[in-house]
Amino acid sequence: MIRLPDLHNRLASHGYHTIALQAPEGLKRLLPRLAQDLQNLGYEVIISGDPCYGACDLDLNARDCADVLVHIGHTPVDETDRVIYEPWPVDGDISVINEAIPRLTGKKVGLVTTVQHIHLLPKVVELLSNAGIESVVAEPSSRTPCPGQVLGCSFHAARKAGADEILFLGTGLFHPIGIKLATGARVIACDPITGRIEEPDADRLLRVRFGLIQKAKEAHSYGIIVSSKTGQCRSDLSDHLCSLSKRAYKIMLREVTPDQLLNMGFPCYVNTACPRLAYDDQIRFSVPVLTPAEFEIVCGFRDFADYEVDEIS
Amino acid sequence: MIRLPDLHNRLASHGYHTIALQAPEGLKRLLPRLAQDLQNLGYEVIISGDPCYGACDLDLNARDCADVLVHIGHTPVDETDRVIYEPWPVDGDISVINEAIPRLTGKKVGLVTTVQHIHLLPKVVELLSNAGIESVVAEPSSRTPCPGQVLGCSFHAARKAGADEILFLGTGLFHPIGIKLATGARVIACDPITGRIEEPDADRLLRVRFGLIQKAKEAHSYGIIVSSKTGQCRSDLSDHLCSLSKRAYKIMLREVTPDQLLNMGFPCYVNTACPRLAYDDQIRFSVPVLTPAEFEIVCGFRDFADYEVDEIS
Repeated sequence: MIRLPDLHNRLASHGYHTIALQAPEGLKRLLPRLAQDLQNLGYEVIISGDPCYGACDLDLNARDCADVLVHIGHTPVDETDRVIYEPWPVDGDISVINEAIPRLTGKKVGLVTTVQHIHLLPKVVELLSNAGIESVVAEPSSRTPCPGQVLGCSFHAARKAGADEILFLGTGLFHPIGIKLATGARVIACDPITGRIEEPDADRLLRVRFGLIQKAKEAHSYGIIVSSKTGQCRSDLSDHLCSLSKRAYKIMLREVTPDQLLNMGFPCYVNTACPRLAYDDQIRFSVPVLTPAEFEIVCGFRDFADYEVDEIS
Repeated sequence: MIRLPDLHNRLASHGYHTIALQAPEGLKRLLPRLAQDLQNLGYEVIISGDPCYGACDLDLNARDCADVLVHIGHTPVDETDRVIYEPWPVDGDISVINEAIPRLTGKKVGLVTTVQHIHLLPKVVELLSNAGIESVVAEPSSRTPCPGQVLGCSFHAARKAGADEILFLGTGLFHPIGIKLATGARVIACDPITGRIEEPDADRLLRVRFGLIQKAKEAHSYGIIVSSKTGQCRSDLSDHLCSLSKRAYKIMLREVTPDQLLNMGFPCYVNTACPRLAYDDQIRFSVPVLTPAEFEIVCGFRDFADYEVDEIS
């Protein structure tokens, strides 16, 4: 729930009158009601309807039609002006941790989670401590301002923990696989919503990626995607990648969708926008969409043994 | 075909070095080759990969990463800085006009077409003249800089012709229906690609729109869409529409897609972006997407008898 009096105080303290509202897809349906509540308090409101997948995706057009952008559900990844971040904590059943404890082999474990469960970490530390296990919760970094926080594009907190075993509290296998690739540690994923515990297999992903790299070597040209989104624009990286091949062309894209890639007709793309696109969405694309490191392998500038998961630093 | 030497001259005369390229979806596949040609001439190139449906849709992000934006296939709808418009003429068989001539009842006809066939108009005028028929080709307007040109959002040239009968040279029935609604004249659509001649029936569209208006009256709230695209942003109009109902909320959107409308969950939307969205794409949307005039009817600020086709002036 949005704490409306708190938000009202924050907005009023700055003298903001016209408010742009933005939320990720799963929370967008909250916005009409929140807009109504704010209008009842005397604010003018504009809702951002564009797709939103993170704080890398700030709608500056909407902000520029308003005094401030209220961005719901994420923490800041940069210092963009006139943006207020409103958390959206999601509770769950952390007793899943008790079931994971017997699987741990050591007495020290790295502990990471995604932003919606950050508030659960102190209780998880306590559960682990009661079982005689020390939790290492890494300090914040520039893109992950909460201790122990990971993003789909930043596993800094997992790497920083420096532990042989890492407990991930959260949903899905994307983050655990990324953590495994980024750290080499054993990863145990505990889902506080479903109660499921899994140890991710990164080998399958690597085999798929290897196949895509082989296929990409046959391509006669490459579209190097650079994002126009605030927190996903890796311009220097795209320039570097373009310099690796005479057959590479730079493409600016906002939403990287199967339709847009199909319409341009390149036989292979390299993605410098959100790292998850290449990993998570490959199944939706009809041609290989490589990560930057994978394209370096294609061009002979990197060995497969030096494979690195794509992150935005 | 792009006349590369001409384009090179225009770019070089301004001292432009880094070139952003943009084309509508149907022409996007030309861009890799054009990028290669320009790179061979020493330019740096960035391709705009975002969806593009007109000159209302300029990719200013790509332009701002370059010295200039080369926009292919459309004429300007505004005076945006650092944009070069490159035509993409499409030939066809204008003998279709000879077959249409016997259908004309008078000796004077308004003549309109879309930008890709503009170069065919002088020959069409000649054909009509040979048959003793005077063509009225309206002067340019601010959004339609070619004589006799219509857009999906501007039927000015048809209205200005002031004729009882209008010949439309082009493809599809959207423009002819729009012309019929905008002028009340008899419209004969001649397709130079398929050779087909049709007289559009606007009544069917009106019946569908009437049904949508009735359905929209039951909605408990309305999302008023305002576009963040350069040439589609009708901010004052969206403010006016919001003022008509306490249950109307302003939504800023770049691409108006079924997914985005579904995610926000409004039971009805009003579109102030590209007028074609409400008319052409309604079949893709699960809820009514009204035009501005239709929402005025819903709110009791306009009679159905005063129905007006949506245009951007």
